[in-house]
Amino acid sequence: MSSFRQSWLAMPADSHFSLRNIPFGIISTASDPRHRPAIAIGNYALDLLEFSRGGGFQQAGFTNLEVFENSTLNAFAALGQQAHRLVRLYIQDIFTSGGPYPDLLEENLLLRERALIPLSAIQNHLPLDIGDYTDFYVGRNHAYNCGVILRGPENALNRNYYHTPIAYHGRASSVVVSGTPVKRPVGQILPDATATVPVLEPCRRLDYELELAAFIGSGNKLGERIKVDDAEQHIFGYVIMNDWSARDIQAWEYVPLGPFTAKNFATSISPWVVTPDALEPFKTQPLARPAQAAPVLPYLAASKQQTVYDIKLQVEYKTAEGDSAVISRVSSKFLLFSFAQMIAHHTVTGANLRPGDLIASGTISGQDSDSYGSLLEKSQGGKLSFVIGQSTRKFLQNGDTVTFMGAADDNSGGGLVGFGEVTGTILEPDM
Amino acid sequence: MSSFRQSWLAMPADSHFSLRNIPFGIISTASDPRHRPAIAIGNYALDLLEFSRGGGFQQAGFTNLEVFENSTLNAFAALGQQAHRLVRLYIQDIFTSGGPYPDLLEENLLLRERALIPLSAIQNHLPLDIGDYTDFYVGRNHAYNCGVILRGPENALNRNYYHTPIAYHGRASSVVVSGTPVKRPVGQILPDATATVPVLEPCRRLDYELELAAFIGSGNKLGERIKVDDAEQHIFGYVIMNDWSARDIQAWEYVPLGPFTAKNFATSISPWVVTPDALEPFKTQPLARPAQAAPVLPYLAASKQQTVYDIKLQVEYKTAEGDSAVISRVSSKFLLFSFAQMIAHHTVTGANLRPGDLIASGTISGQDSDSYGSLLEKSQGGKLSFVIGQSTRKFLQNGDTVTFMGAADDNSGGGLVGFGEVTGTILEPDM
Repeated sequence: MSSFRQSWLAMPADSHFSLRNIPFGIISTASDPRHRPAIAIGNYALDLLEFSRGGGFQQAGFTNLEVFENSTLNAFAALGQQAHRLVRLYIQDIFTSGGPYPDLLEENLLLRERALIPLSAIQNHLPLDIGDYTDFYVGRNHAYNCGVILRGPENALNRNYYHTPIAYHGRASSVVVSGTPVKRPVGQILPDATATVPVLEPCRRLDYELELAAFIGSGNKLGERIKVDDAEQHIFGYVIMNDWSARDIQAWEYVPLGPFTAKNFATSISPWVVTPDALEPFKTQPLARPAQAAPVLPYLAASKQQTVYDIKLQVEYKTAEGDSAVISRVSSKFLLFSFAQMIAHHTVTGANLRPGDLIASGTISGQDSDSYGSLLEKSQGGKLSFVIGQSTRKFLQNGDTVTFMGAADDNSGGGLVGFGEVTGTILEPDM
Repeated sequence: MSSFRQSWLAMPADSHFSLRNIPFGIISTASDPRHRPAIAIGNYALDLLEFSRGGGFQQAGFTNLEVFENSTLNAFAALGQQAHRLVRLYIQDIFTSGGPYPDLLEENLLLRERALIPLSAIQNHLPLDIGDYTDFYVGRNHAYNCGVILRGPENALNRNYYHTPIAYHGRASSVVVSGTPVKRPVGQILPDATATVPVLEPCRRLDYELELAAFIGSGNKLGERIKVDDAEQHIFGYVIMNDWSARDIQAWEYVPLGPFTAKNFATSISPWVVTPDALEPFKTQPLARPAQAAPVLPYLAASKQQTVYDIKLQVEYKTAEGDSAVISRVSSKFLLFSFAQMIAHHTVTGANLRPGDLIASGTISGQDSDSYGSLLEKSQGGKLSFVIGQSTRKFLQNGDTVTFMGAADDNSGGGLVGFGEVTGTILEPDM
């Protein structure tokens, strides 16, 4: 018999939203278009606005109920991890079979009718207003694989790579929620290998990037640093991300200041924010640093060893022709630096993080072709085709759909702690 | 006799805020700490919240008075250029000697007392909430000078430079208003020329960058482009900017994804947003493209020839020891691409701009050392010292103050269209 609590709510065994998850999001319904906070549990969303107004939080000891009146989770995120913990544990109690508050929801059919909504009936929206979006590059296998493709194995990684968590600022305005179609970008590309003058054309090498990303909860003041051992307290929660990338535009524009229009057209995220508390049982050690690399500088040296998560990620590719396959499976643990280290590095100069800021890992890849997090790697820079049913591909075609899924499972009987999916279909460009 | 209208308000001849300027900002006062919209005129700010509440806009034909109740200018900016034009022209009428509305302010001593505040009594705040901040690199002389320092004159500019307006996304959270002190950043640097392992130390090569920047007014939807000939309509107005830069951190970290912590700690802007209408008389032609470069692609080809502004910029350097000098004078016209071209390029992929987004030119330099926009150029990469009174410098020392000023003047008798200043003093770092 499992030592985990069971819910009175019917809970499919393969649900990403088990009683030990309780991720936060923003929803609306056809009959009620207000954007409002919710949690996901089993096949349902609990509308936190209606639950709160219906007295659901009267036993919670949580008094900041005004945050559930907002159309984003920023105000809730800003309250800090103690508040998120309190609300999550309380909601777990609410849904526990034989729990302490059966009258608040389980036996309150009126409030259940009003606040508990099938996931099939809701629409998800961006969970937070994103102030700044920072994309790291600490998926070491991806960085190495791309370096080999571009410069060969001897010079695959730049000399700074093992020392400094490489990152660039991304475009916040074009971060969209799962399900939003992605129009193929038009941009400057070199028309062939010998060209020196660009043309303006639809991207020919459109790619995805499989990433894990953290939303900041409480921030820091400008001029103050966040220490690596304090950094996790500043994380509201995690989503999975597709950082769509135009490889031909990127190749032409990225010297000397990094990618710009190659990545500014869309970045997709999964809708439910999974808390650090929910993921805590799935912590493990990050990638070992190579023997020849010096230790990290003290400001990046965490006192804990288990600093990354073993979340099972997968890439499902559905072609415009209708063929479909899972073409990649990889663990989110393949990071050289943890999110705590990314945050410590981000703020070492005194740069301020704000509630709702989004910090992404960079592409997560394994070491072989069925674990790659991008098509640049899978096609070896466009040299190799791969097969999905009757279709062959090197890069994304119009009408193709890419769906990432992510879930952690320890086979403990406690159920999955999952993210659901982040999906997007490529639309034809306008010229 | 000048053909320009005169104001009943005493107007110093050297004021940046002449009757033909009317820039917008956000102010507070010691007795009233609310952040509220204002315009600057002569030695005064007109508090638009109090002016509006006092009936000042009753003749304006401008009905969106709720925007003046906000603590930022985003809602006003979002209304679009017609609205900004209407309000600016109306305020010019209000302040015109013999103008149509003497009873609304000139003869209304109660409202003057309430809404017209000496600039010496106000505090400025960030004029808009900045969603995304994009920094271009289209100051051709600066790009060339830096390229010569790093790679020699033959390879100074990358092959994409004349074709694509190079840019990167900057950090929006750390954009601060003029007067905010700047703490010297700490970061990873190589301790000497032969080192391969970095140390964590205060930046040794702290620099400024002299830039012009545009705030976006009305934006565009994700997936839609802004055409180059429509782009100026999307600009709310301009500020001058100091993009503080840590050159040693930048040199270590910028390959392959561009600068990150080297620039994320602070970017300072002048407080008053000068409208495109006010700057229209000062338009001129951008830098000629070299004969060997192909013409720009059609999406960047504006139908107008006069696309940049001749704003006289200067850098005043005051050392911690108390010596002071203007060390650089340069025109803002030294850009390879106009702001309209930057916006057309930014959105060519369908990337969306939002009201309050900030788009900067990159460093503006002339061709010789008394017109450089950065110390990297002035010290030739740290090789040459320069003298200010009794002080010598290569890069910024703690206690040094850098003040940029900018104003356009055509000696027409209409007065200056200026930005005031953007200033910042370097503070000691915390270690």
